[in-house]
Amino acid sequence: MLEIEKYQKAFIDYLENYSITKEPENLYEPIAYILRLGGKRLRPVLTLMTADIFGKDYRKALDAALSIEVFHNFSLVHDDIMDDAPLRRGKQTVHERWDTNTAILSGDAMLIIAYQLFENYDATIFQALAKLFSKTALEVCEGQQYDVDFETRSDVSIPEYLKMIEYKTAVLVAAAMKMGAIVAHATESDQNDIYEFGRYLGIAFQLQDDYLDAFGNPETFGKQVGGDIIENKKTYLYLKALEVLNASEKKRLTDLFLSNPTETEQKVETVKQLFVASGADEATKKAIQAYTQKAFVTLEGLNIPEDKKRLLKAFGSALMNRDV
Amino acid sequence: MLEIEKYQKAFIDYLENYSITKEPENLYEPIAYILRLGGKRLRPVLTLMTADIFGKDYRKALDAALSIEVFHNFSLVHDDIMDDAPLRRGKQTVHERWDTNTAILSGDAMLIIAYQLFENYDATIFQALAKLFSKTALEVCEGQQYDVDFETRSDVSIPEYLKMIEYKTAVLVAAAMKMGAIVAHATESDQNDIYEFGRYLGIAFQLQDDYLDAFGNPETFGKQVGGDIIENKKTYLYLKALEVLNASEKKRLTDLFLSNPTETEQKVETVKQLFVASGADEATKKAIQAYTQKAFVTLEGLNIPEDKKRLLKAFGSALMNRDV
Repeated sequence: MLEIEKYQKAFIDYLENYSITKEPENLYEPIAYILRLGGKRLRPVLTLMTADIFGKDYRKALDAALSIEVFHNFSLVHDDIMDDAPLRRGKQTVHERWDTNTAILSGDAMLIIAYQLFENYDATIFQALAKLFSKTALEVCEGQQYDVDFETRSDVSIPEYLKMIEYKTAVLVAAAMKMGAIVAHATESDQNDIYEFGRYLGIAFQLQDDYLDAFGNPETFGKQVGGDIIENKKTYLYLKALEVLNASEKKRLTDLFLSNPTETEQKVETVKQLFVASGADEATKKAIQAYTQKAFVTLEGLNIPEDKKRLLKAFGSALMNRDV
Repeated sequence: MLEIEKYQKAFIDYLENYSITKEPENLYEPIAYILRLGGKRLRPVLTLMTADIFGKDYRKALDAALSIEVFHNFSLVHDDIMDDAPLRRGKQTVHERWDTNTAILSGDAMLIIAYQLFENYDATIFQALAKLFSKTALEVCEGQQYDVDFETRSDVSIPEYLKMIEYKTAVLVAAAMKMGAIVAHATESDQNDIYEFGRYLGIAFQLQDDYLDAFGNPETFGKQVGGDIIENKKTYLYLKALEVLNASEKKRLTDLFLSNPTETEQKVETVKQLFVASGADEATKKAIQAYTQKAFVTLEGLNIPEDKKRLLKAFGSALMNRDV
């Protein structure tokens, strides 16, 4: 993963030197704060890597990469208000450290800044990036709305769930890669293939998140194992289990997902047993593999050297073999 | 004002036929709701009028005009959350009718849609519109933040106040006009002059709002006369009065602006007397005239027929002679 570290370093350097703090301080300080909380910087790394793979100096893609990261953090700031989340990457969320009004307004400014970051590209590239960005950003909003809607619905289907995670998570991964391809003047066909690669990989990534949340190694998984179960989140595991379980087991699972016990250990254990008994755990693993495979198939048509394809495949495999 | 009505009608027709409602409903319904609450549609009318004045079919500017109106309404939706306002144009605000989370997310989507509305223009026009839009939108956010900051500051100066209203109100009027000029392929010099015209007129318009809020005719003024005084808003009238009043009168005024009596009539009367005694009322009228005059001077350099200049001047004069 040495290559990845190269992009990561270049991106972090660029971010550090990017001057965010302007007047009025109360608007720009929260932006600098959230952008410097850290994180894996996965999306901007993908933009840089893709530009490189299509034969462009990856530094030319730094503004597009930063735009993607600013947008991602905008969505975190507004989502954290909506979820009333106290912490983000172990630190106070913006609305907790300042207040809700500040988080709304600073978030709005970040969405605008994300567009401004395209301004150094010429008019044709600018338009291509901004169009893709708008389409993607709107889909992310739609995904967030579906996620909110699903909380109070008891009839969410698996195709609906897949559409929700596609919009909420996968399209931004896909757009991050396509932006790298746009900056590198890749052909339209290559742009679309790399978008599909990112989209399938993004769906696989989110399904794996669902899986690891329940079955990950507590010692290496960053978050509390069973968090989704405690919060009664209708993940792929849950929806798949409901599909398979008999009436009485199904009732047991749905009842557990209406409960909010203070002692959560027993609930998490029982739900996990139901996930295993129903085969939902294996079905989820299979779905992850299937989407990863779909991603790899899209690589075949790309007009890039074989070693670059192997690089993308290695990246995808590494991502799918994580246990964190 | 027949011309204005023509643009207004064209804009309202376009808005009516613009299909906003898509899936998910909970995201798009609030957008359709706020956009159809009505209003004078002043900003989009200015975009159409400016395109017309620079010799372009004004219908070519309808998308840019709609973008400006969508942005304006986005800012109302988010500002209404921040101000905890129950009503907008006599109807429930979005966060009241739905909830705060819906108002945040639907607002975000509107900001993105505003950019999407430029997509029918070719790459060069698209970039010019989007750049102007981003700069303006960020200034509007900054203006809103200054407005919030000023609430808890006792040392706001008149230049600071003028900068705040310029950012919060005037730049959007200016940008609305410049967008019409951009769509009409006006020269850069004409684009900048019409921007300045809009900016000065926008400042004059806001100062007049301050004046009418205290001294407007209760029978024709749309809002409650004295509303700013009741809410202790540091308007131009207030800041000018503080500049002139002697120490004891100054203390009287600042004390009144720390009070929140249930019976407001006496407070409003006393404050208005202090505004008159200090000459703040006349100073405000003078400032309105001065900014209107500055606007008119910028018209002189424009490369348009004299009758078009007269049209713009007539429009400015009509705006400044309103009592509503």
